[in-house]
Amino acid sequence: MNPTPQVAPRAWNTLADDKASRLALAAHLARGKHVDAADAVALIETILRPGDRVCIEGNNQKHADFLSACLAKADPQRVHDLHIVQSNLALASHLDVFERGIARDLDFCYSGDQGVRMGRLIKEGRIRVGAIHTYLELYSRYFVDLTPRVAFVAAQSADAQGNLYTGPNTEDTPAVVEGTAFKNGIVIAQVNEIVDVLPRVDVPSDWVSFVVKAPKPHYIEPIFTRDPALISEVQVLMAMMVVKGLYAPYQVRRLNHGIGFDTAAIELILPTYAESLGLRDKICEYMSVNPCPTLIPAIESGFVKGIHCAGSELGMERYVAQRSDVFFTGPDGSMRSNRAFCQLAGHYADLFIGSTLQIDLKGNSSTATLNRIAGFGGAPNFGSESRGRRHSSPGWLKAGAEGRAGLSRMPRGRKLVVQLVETFREKMQPTFVERLDAWQLQEDFALDLPPVMVYGDDLTHVVTEEGIAHLHRCATLREREQAIRGVAGYTPAGLARDRREVENLRDKGIVQRPEDLGIDPRLATRDLLAARSVKDLVRWSGGLYDPPRRFRHW
Amino acid sequence: MNPTPQVAPRAWNTLADDKASRLALAAHLARGKHVDAADAVALIETILRPGDRVCIEGNNQKHADFLSACLAKADPQRVHDLHIVQSNLALASHLDVFERGIARDLDFCYSGDQGVRMGRLIKEGRIRVGAIHTYLELYSRYFVDLTPRVAFVAAQSADAQGNLYTGPNTEDTPAVVEGTAFKNGIVIAQVNEIVDVLPRVDVPSDWVSFVVKAPKPHYIEPIFTRDPALISEVQVLMAMMVVKGLYAPYQVRRLNHGIGFDTAAIELILPTYAESLGLRDKICEYMSVNPCPTLIPAIESGFVKGIHCAGSELGMERYVAQRSDVFFTGPDGSMRSNRAFCQLAGHYADLFIGSTLQIDLKGNSSTATLNRIAGFGGAPNFGSESRGRRHSSPGWLKAGAEGRAGLSRMPRGRKLVVQLVETFREKMQPTFVERLDAWQLQEDFALDLPPVMVYGDDLTHVVTEEGIAHLHRCATLREREQAIRGVAGYTPAGLARDRREVENLRDKGIVQRPEDLGIDPRLATRDLLAARSVKDLVRWSGGLYDPPRRFRHW
Repeated sequence: MNPTPQVAPRAWNTLADDKASRLALAAHLARGKHVDAADAVALIETILRPGDRVCIEGNNQKHADFLSACLAKADPQRVHDLHIVQSNLALASHLDVFERGIARDLDFCYSGDQGVRMGRLIKEGRIRVGAIHTYLELYSRYFVDLTPRVAFVAAQSADAQGNLYTGPNTEDTPAVVEGTAFKNGIVIAQVNEIVDVLPRVDVPSDWVSFVVKAPKPHYIEPIFTRDPALISEVQVLMAMMVVKGLYAPYQVRRLNHGIGFDTAAIELILPTYAESLGLRDKICEYMSVNPCPTLIPAIESGFVKGIHCAGSELGMERYVAQRSDVFFTGPDGSMRSNRAFCQLAGHYADLFIGSTLQIDLKGNSSTATLNRIAGFGGAPNFGSESRGRRHSSPGWLKAGAEGRAGLSRMPRGRKLVVQLVETFREKMQPTFVERLDAWQLQEDFALDLPPVMVYGDDLTHVVTEEGIAHLHRCATLREREQAIRGVAGYTPAGLARDRREVENLRDKGIVQRPEDLGIDPRLATRDLLAARSVKDLVRWSGGLYDPPRRFRHW
Repeated sequence: MNPTPQVAPRAWNTLADDKASRLALAAHLARGKHVDAADAVALIETILRPGDRVCIEGNNQKHADFLSACLAKADPQRVHDLHIVQSNLALASHLDVFERGIARDLDFCYSGDQGVRMGRLIKEGRIRVGAIHTYLELYSRYFVDLTPRVAFVAAQSADAQGNLYTGPNTEDTPAVVEGTAFKNGIVIAQVNEIVDVLPRVDVPSDWVSFVVKAPKPHYIEPIFTRDPALISEVQVLMAMMVVKGLYAPYQVRRLNHGIGFDTAAIELILPTYAESLGLRDKICEYMSVNPCPTLIPAIESGFVKGIHCAGSELGMERYVAQRSDVFFTGPDGSMRSNRAFCQLAGHYADLFIGSTLQIDLKGNSSTATLNRIAGFGGAPNFGSESRGRRHSSPGWLKAGAEGRAGLSRMPRGRKLVVQLVETFREKMQPTFVERLDAWQLQEDFALDLPPVMVYGDDLTHVVTEEGIAHLHRCATLREREQAIRGVAGYTPAGLARDRREVENLRDKGIVQRPEDLGIDPRLATRDLLAARSVKDLVRWSGGLYDPPRRFRHW
């Protein structure tokens, strides 16, 4: 006897049918796929249904700002209870939709400057947060249980058919559009211009339902520009320790740098200090980062050979186009970035180095601060052990071997995860704390877990102006705690160190001072910076780098 | 004083210039982008340079078989010392290029049936293996240090301009093409047909340099089809334990199933056994898998609601197209698969369950067997802790809490990673071993590390016909070893258990027998399978599933 399926007949293509009916309702607003900016609010009111899951493209940098503003103007009687799935909330309009009752649920990655207002809206019950994600896991859920019904994306230009050219800020667009378009969702693109022939096609027209030429170009935030003039000598000293104490012995060729002056200092001493140590062609060859202007001297002097970017950076367009051996560019010459692939590449690289606001005595770190819901961005992915990795490299093998010394564990490599921090941050707040603010935040916002950025389990090194702590070599939690205290300087956590134990750790090389590394702190001056100003960067670039006005001080 | 850049002027667009010169040399072979199949060998000899890094698209299923065969026919005087970067080596021609001296270096993921011949070629020094990767890390390196100079890809059809439609087996194509095309590499596509209008565009024409219509359609391997007739009652019993002992208490809604009869049995008892437990709408709602035919009853009966696929499966095309609410399909109705996103989605899901050939007493597992270099495929990524994950789900929180019980660690969730194995495999080889063959393989092939598929550190559960071992709840390595022995049956490893300790583990619920779960082994019969033959699957599908001839026994 064979089982006979006894299942009631049902419709299996309801999403496709629903999409077709929505498109039909909006057809009168469009010529082909093109809709006038004046009709954008009407389009949105016609296309959206209450409860829809909606992605508003909000990257680190590029924003579908016009469509977001139009959504915020929609009639809450018609459009309400939306579930927003969006990587980055950066604009006022992103929260206006919650304030006005148009949206209710939110799954996101990062909120940055909007964190305080978001905190208030959560407490008022106007935003129900599903979860705070890292980028890759949110993109992943676009293909699982958070597939957008409608996505608003931003591109540089479209042609008559609706093919899109993103420009150098391709960023999240491919992930957002693929997840939406291939589940019979509706993709609406705002573009800066309509052209006859696109420089290249980044998104084929049959993945796009509507195109709206926005009244002004979409907003781009230059978040990766650091003025070398603001780099301190302490940061130069820490950068020297990183180069000599980590990059050299671990032969770090493939890596990701976080954003900030600390890592900018490293980039700027490659052509000087690292060169003097004979490290060219040995370290920092391949990077997964945005095209940070402070990388220019390291590129020009032949240190950094290849860079794949998550997004672009304002002012770097001409430089990138003229350095196509280094960057990923299209047949048109402009950059093709892609955050999903860049995050992946960085995850499987040999090292991540970034900064944080707080580190506890187990090495857990967080950028969460009270009353703000800031989110994680990409750091937890870059800054976590890549346990799906199987290919080896010298640093990965060395860190793995050091981490299991004396233990009968299966040999395995290990990713280098480094926190680079000064012992005190702004307003003399200690970086090292007994208890992260994240615990309080968990309580305040009823989160399932404290919002930890990088877990102590995944961290291998802490570098401060006092020295390097090789945490992965510590045999016990007690030893790890003393190693952290041992580089925590004059913070209360640092002052509470067991001096003798820390000296023992120095003897074992688990704590290293500049002098242990053969570094003379007196040589840590700004003279080591290959560029000391934005103008210097422009000069290094042969005039190709065109900094935004706010960085031009000459 | 500002530092003056003192860098010798150099060319920065050599890849673009080199590409242009290669394309110019081959221009006489092409009309537009189209090249005759008869000229394919000449094209390859003209385009390639000795030492080039070359990607031959070889997915789990879809292969650029014609271009691979043409490459193997190239003149080794002209084309030699290539570095092949390729996810899957499955065809004889993939190794012919090494045998003939056309290629020398290899970075890959999986070799399957070619593993023995590959082992011989490595020992003869004809293949130098860089590393064996998992899929995602190899794709990642396309954007770092293993960017292809030339890629051979396979698609269903092309139009006159060279836009490509991949058909349902999109698989790796987007990752391969993006990595190559945007670093001024050359993409050559073989297609089954040239058409006036594509059903949809999967790859825009400006990412493609040449199109060759192959003499016959590209090869597709149906590797995900399991005949329910071959599922044993032991496999039904194990499936019952998985459903009642893992999926139910951990509320596993999002998951990945490995390939095999063990997981096929789970899929086939969802509409019967899981239904009887009231688990519909509670477990197995979203999957990251290929469209395995054994999923049909679970889809039809409303268990599985969404599936994102790494590739397709022969015979499932019409069924998938008619179930667009479940699968990801394009505007043309056919599937769009994408291995990169599917691997990501599975990595961040709540559970991975798969099989292996050997498990040691620390829980490390490997499919490596002597004299073969088989590689890993996707399992190490699916089957490893997702440490970059930050969003929570009930099972993830529960597994995390169980794993740190009694420890003062920062709260963190944990991925469920399950090995589902019978205690003996084919030819009465014990699955549980004191020492993995992987150690011998490391020695034989001078690998940096033993080729471990899933590390014991990452494993949470082992399920055999004897019971479930909850490894993540073990406090010590000794306890973990006894838990593994406790489900290892009559293998030498199982017989050497400390019976008293195993009973203690049962009392703690760390080892569970079927009776501990309220499962009567006598009810574990094939009657529980919703389909007991391929014909049953066809019936469940309403005739939409069209199995390949080799699976038709009626």
